Amino acid sequence: MKVFNDLADFSNDEIQALLELSNRLDAYPEPQALRGKVLSLLFLSPSLRTLASFQAAMTRLGGGSFVISPDMSIHGLETRPGIVMDGAAAEHIREAVPVIASYGDAIGIRAFAERKNLEKDMAEQEFAALTGLIDTPYINMESAMNHPCQNLADWKTMDDLDIPSNGGKFVLSWAYHPKALPLAVPASTLYTAARRGMDVTVLRPEGFELPEPLMQKASEAAAANGGSVTESDDRSEAMEGAHVIYAKSWSSTRHYGDRLKDQELRNELVDWCVDEPWFDNARDDCRFMHCLPVRRGVVVSEPVLDGPRSVVIPEARNRMLAQMAVLHQMLGGTS
Amino acid sequence: MKVFNDLADFSNDEIQALLELSNRLDAYPEPQALRGKVLSLLFLSPSLRTLASFQAAMTRLGGGSFVISPDMSIHGLETRPGIVMDGAAAEHIREAVPVIASYGDAIGIRAFAERKNLEKDMAEQEFAALTGLIDTPYINMESAMNHPCQNLADWKTMDDLDIPSNGGKFVLSWAYHPKALPLAVPASTLYTAARRGMDVTVLRPEGFELPEPLMQKASEAAAANGGSVTESDDRSEAMEGAHVIYAKSWSSTRHYGDRLKDQELRNELVDWCVDEPWFDNARDDCRFMHCLPVRRGVVVSEPVLDGPRSVVIPEARNRMLAQMAVLHQMLGGTS
Amino acid sequence: MKVFNDLADFSNDEIQALLELSNRLDAYPEPQALRGKVLSLLFLSPSLRTLASFQAAMTRLGGGSFVISPDMSIHGLETRPGIVMDGAAAEHIREAVPVIASYGDAIGIRAFAERKNLEKDMAEQEFAALTGLIDTPYINMESAMNHPCQNLADWKTMDDLDIPSNGGKFVLSWAYHPKALPLAVPASTLYTAARRGMDVTVLRPEGFELPEPLMQKASEAAAANGGSVTESDDRSEAMEGAHVIYAKSWSSTRHYGDRLKDQELRNELVDWCVDEPWFDNARDDCRFMHCLPVRRGVVVSEPVLDGPRSVVIPEARNRMLAQMAVLHQMLGGTS
Repeated sequence: MKVFNDLADFSNDEIQALLELSNRLDAYPEPQALRGKVLSLLFLSPSLRTLASFQAAMTRLGGGSFVISPDMSIHGLETRPGIVMDGAAAEHIREAVPVIASYGDAIGIRAFAERKNLEKDMAEQEFAALTGLIDTPYINMESAMNHPCQNLADWKTMDDLDIPSNGGKFVLSWAYHPKALPLAVPASTLYTAARRGMDVTVLRPEGFELPEPLMQKASEAAAANGGSVTESDDRSEAMEGAHVIYAKSWSSTRHYGDRLKDQELRNELVDWCVDEPWFDNARDDCRFMHCLPVRRGVVVSEPVLDGPRSVVIPEARNRMLAQMAVLHQMLGGTS
Repeated sequence: MKVFNDLADFSNDEIQALLELSNRLDAYPEPQALRGKVLSLLFLSPSLRTLASFQAAMTRLGGGSFVISPDMSIHGLETRPGIVMDGAAAEHIREAVPVIASYGDAIGIRAFAERKNLEKDMAEQEFAALTGLIDTPYINMESAMNHPCQNLADWKTMDDLDIPSNGGKFVLSWAYHPKALPLAVPASTLYTAARRGMDVTVLRPEGFELPEPLMQKASEAAAANGGSVTESDDRSEAMEGAHVIYAKSWSSTRHYGDRLKDQELRNELVDWCVDEPWFDNARDDCRFMHCLPVRRGVVVSEPVLDGPRSVVIPEARNRMLAQMAVLHQMLGGTS
Repeated sequence: MKVFNDLADFSNDEIQALLELSNRLDAYPEPQALRGKVLSLLFLSPSLRTLASFQAAMTRLGGGSFVISPDMSIHGLETRPGIVMDGAAAEHIREAVPVIASYGDAIGIRAFAERKNLEKDMAEQEFAALTGLIDTPYINMESAMNHPCQNLADWKTMDDLDIPSNGGKFVLSWAYHPKALPLAVPASTLYTAARRGMDVTVLRPEGFELPEPLMQKASEAAAANGGSVTESDDRSEAMEGAHVIYAKSWSSTRHYGDRLKDQELRNELVDWCVDEPWFDNARDDCRFMHCLPVRRGVVVSEPVLDGPRSVVIPEARNRMLAQMAVLHQMLGGTS
């Protein structure tokens, strides 16, 4: 494996192999598998889980990692092409990224969307500009539209809980948040649940529809795997018989890049906080998932988050296990 | 060992075993003992020695660690219970701590006292609120009233120097410092010297008495181990025949949580800087100990700190060795 | 090897052995060589390549490292001798440096020049004040006048490219930069190219002459190894037949420590940006080297930096390999 960027790049068999490997590495540690191997970790956007879980994953496999973020460089990194660098930034990503990559056997890169122009973000122009600078194997640690490590962890979490793939009902729900957040998690989670063959409903208020190409990609994946994709703004309808609600806030797509108009729209939507009544006509054992960080009392009520429905902690732990499987395959670990 | 929080939780035999193990690991390294094992390090308060020595300890035993501090998270971590998180903090410790813990085989946590209410700090409410969130084995890296890694290192330091336990005279002395500092080191050092069976004198100006329950706990430990505990504000009396002076500044307990009144009191006490005349009627070979960081010319004079009495550097190195012993027992290292 | 501070401290055979070892470790990894060994990394000045490459180097050899920079300490580290520490700094380097060193089997230290007084910087007073505090083996990660890890990497880079030592023409050229930068890289690069037996020309505008003692040291090294050292402010003359141009900005030595006068002088020199016409009478395959970070369009034009002459990325990767050789020798790695 040379690139781990999008679950859509992998066959069903390949995904199954990764999931099985992550389970095996949890049950039977391989602390020699990647001895002497180095993972470069480049964070152009903030992180807690990803930062911790990748370092832990490499240690568990006998290798190591180092972390670089722009604030460690002298006055940050310049990203603009063709610029005369007579300002504050002392280094350009065109040198920094290949150099950092050259110290590792693989590199993980995190770079959130600019969130100014939806087409540009959908095209992953920024992330591609970074990965275009390197030949090293790389892992997407969250880009404008992808978060494959989260996706694989979520898939494993549903497997761990015996949530059915075909016939399993998955609600991806928008939730209120004071800020306009990226689309990476909703976009890639939609695809992942569809790809798993589930019946997926995107529950969102008007103005927060997911972009048509994403809905299309997910619908095709669902169709090929025995599932379906629909959308709704009716909470009760969407939640009927649900096995899982996956809550996440995201930017308005109608006013993408327009913070003021987005704010106006979301200010009316503070009641989109997942609370126990949401589950009235879901399955009794309907689970609550979230990629974290999550704002208590804003995105989800405390009773739901602290109650038996919530699986957010094991879901987060699965990040480490999923990444161990990816690293094991990418860096040539032998059992 | 599942918890390393307070030397009082361990029998004399268990403490001796840790001290012997730390010596053995210094003499006979075991770079395979913890291979593939991960220590999570969570710093809710600043650190230098603890940060460095725990990372070094894990590497020396063949494992690894990762470091998280709140400033690595998005806008810090919320700690208040039951709050609607519509402010700056994007994540609550109720998620962050269990998740970070879940990536490690054990977690080290540092969280200083709030220093507003003495009873609350004595009850270790904050630290208990953190450790109550996890099932993982944990190590106290300094809480409101405990600093067991420092205590074990100090005990080892005195053993290394052949300072007698029974019959050894230990002076724990308050010292001037421009700020009101926590009680963790004086409180737990008092207990440790008493538990070692030494004759302990707490030397402090009025208004800086250590809380009665701490004195009581130490007296009982001393009595059970052939030592004694007294207190004094008379420097010459306290230092008579001393084997060790352990200097440390701490908050006024009379005006605990009242920075202004504390300041008023301490402003009169700038002469509480340990200087050579303090040693006039101590033993000739009386040692100077301090947990560091220490302010030169404020807490202790340069001639004392740079002279032959001072053992602060080997004392600090013993932090690493003591922690290696704790980690070896906690994470199941085999020899 | 107990100290790696200056290539001048090593015989030709010793340098050759390090270069061969760095090649061998690249071809035949030794992930067990330094198992359980710890490198302390102390950065009193900022870093990106050094930070990443040393961590990667230790991991590749089976050991580990930890990083300390002053901003991790409480309110920074005091460096002034004999001071009463009643200000912001809570710790002095006299404690911090020995303690940090004591946790490692070796320590790497970076501390740039003060750039106030040339004689003081030439004498390496600051770096010597730090290393004088420790007994641990140490590596100079860039001081006022030395950057031996960069030098060894540069030597290896020229070997890798089959650039001749005797008969090879090396131009060390000043370049424009908005700030007055340290002399460490030009000073030690001059010596390195001379020591390699090359014909070295220092190309610099008036007011930016390298100090006479450095020129002298380099001339002697050149003479002993079949090379030569000259200087020039004539670009065309200097570049004639050049195999390599090594660009680097540095402070005015005429106005050393006087930022305003330095600025005045350099403001006239913005055309000292290495561009394709510079290579008009160089060898066709003349290479461009730079230690990075480099300002695009300021120090060097984009076409040169992105073109086939530039070897800055493999040069930066050689930092890791050169350091692996040094660490392997210093920490007693066995093959």
